[in-house]
Amino acid sequence: MAILMSQTNIPFPGNSAPIGVFDSGVGGLTVVREIMRALPEESIIYFGDTARVPYGSKSKETVTKYSRQIIRFLNTQHVKAIVVACNTASAMALDEIEKEIKIPIIGVVKPGAKVASETTKNGKIGVIGTEAMIRSNIYPSYLEQINSNVEVIGKPCPLFVPLVEEGLLQDPVTDEIAMRYLSVLIDCNIDTLILGCTHYPLIRSTIARIMGEKVKLVNPAYETAWELKRMLEQENLLCNARPGLGGNQYQFFVSDAAEKFRNFANSILKYGILSAKTINIEEY
Amino acid sequence: MAILMSQTNIPFPGNSAPIGVFDSGVGGLTVVREIMRALPEESIIYFGDTARVPYGSKSKETVTKYSRQIIRFLNTQHVKAIVVACNTASAMALDEIEKEIKIPIIGVVKPGAKVASETTKNGKIGVIGTEAMIRSNIYPSYLEQINSNVEVIGKPCPLFVPLVEEGLLQDPVTDEIAMRYLSVLIDCNIDTLILGCTHYPLIRSTIARIMGEKVKLVNPAYETAWELKRMLEQENLLCNARPGLGGNQYQFFVSDAAEKFRNFANSILKYGILSAKTINIEEY
Repeated sequence: MAILMSQTNIPFPGNSAPIGVFDSGVGGLTVVREIMRALPEESIIYFGDTARVPYGSKSKETVTKYSRQIIRFLNTQHVKAIVVACNTASAMALDEIEKEIKIPIIGVVKPGAKVASETTKNGKIGVIGTEAMIRSNIYPSYLEQINSNVEVIGKPCPLFVPLVEEGLLQDPVTDEIAMRYLSVLIDCNIDTLILGCTHYPLIRSTIARIMGEKVKLVNPAYETAWELKRMLEQENLLCNARPGLGGNQYQFFVSDAAEKFRNFANSILKYGILSAKTINIEEY
Repeated sequence: MAILMSQTNIPFPGNSAPIGVFDSGVGGLTVVREIMRALPEESIIYFGDTARVPYGSKSKETVTKYSRQIIRFLNTQHVKAIVVACNTASAMALDEIEKEIKIPIIGVVKPGAKVASETTKNGKIGVIGTEAMIRSNIYPSYLEQINSNVEVIGKPCPLFVPLVEEGLLQDPVTDEIAMRYLSVLIDCNIDTLILGCTHYPLIRSTIARIMGEKVKLVNPAYETAWELKRMLEQENLLCNARPGLGGNQYQFFVSDAAEKFRNFANSILKYGILSAKTINIEEY
């Protein structure tokens, strides 16, 4: 915490400084993808904590400690704002960490909750995510703050992440598992479903088909990118011009297995990632 | 390393000292189960690195660093021998670490490889495991040291661990995924299959059914327990008497999420585990 606070002695990063984005692994790249679309001028420093993934099964204390280490690293890269592109870290660590740092920071949970509460007509909202995400009860508590009349039904879907990482994006096995997980939400007659894990937009079409066209899907990655844009505008921190061709607009760091990360990143981002650098995050 | 070596100043643990067993998470409990059966007198200290699981996707350097930390912790518990109940750590870290410590240490890979080479008749041995396990090529290299005439076919099965942890031990989805993974091994006409991941004995019946009765399955957890017994006999380290009722014969430590660990442990061990203690492994 002392190190987090010491940044008051560091000159405040300017408009051309990069946005720091972090996740427990590769899932946050779906958030990066949306930021690239919404804010094509901005530079991004991404950190994926591939040595310690997944956060979903870890405690609040552990996830908060890891998030602090990552923010210390991102501060060494002089980022002007931070996006917590990990639902678990947004749920477990953000409230505490946003008191400790001076630059703007947002998570993926609040923007998703806000849009879901604006979308629902019958007041019945479903949330799917990792076990820890659902157990944390963070979406229901945000949603109830916004609108006390909504009913929120959470359903953990622990096999979705490994299925996505195995590349089974369109597959009968993924269909079968999705039908088992989602049937309880169909039975509850929800009209809005929050994709509460950053991997899930990659199987969005499967989820949409099973839920049927009457259920609106909310992708927090998309909503976060637009919320980030509004926040940067408000703080006068938007980048004025796209970096020149020599600029290194997108940089990727991981805590382990950089090559595997690069392969996954290249399968979901339209920008080719030439390299991902491995750092020892425990030094921060 | 300095800390590992400093144990020369600690009195050597006696016959009644516990056996230290560690794994990246819950999988090593299948090894504990076999040790309990083979050596009912012995006390066991188990450490599951649930904060940093899985090791399968991590680099050799990271897995070696984590293994050293765990061995430092086990040494504080005055264990008389160590079982690396994790295929990834056995493959990546054991060769280096066994030079650094004074007490006997064994992994799960060598005992499994030895029995597989004795079992095969046609010289064609299959190995299934996590991606890192298969990529490490450790089973083929051990097997070729023992018998240069064997042919080893490795097949990563990354979805097996999440399917087991989701409890889908007898399930059509597990059957379907197993058929996809194993078909290449059936096509190769193997007669022996090594279950190269500690979770896999829990879906042994599914794997056996798909492979057919002509393929012998080798469970390294079982072979390791018997190899441990031989090793303790040879070193005159076997326990002379079962601890009294007041003794705490089995102790479980984890780096995170102790309750989830306890539930899983109680589902696979016939001994009820009353508690698992969480420690901060990064302090070691």
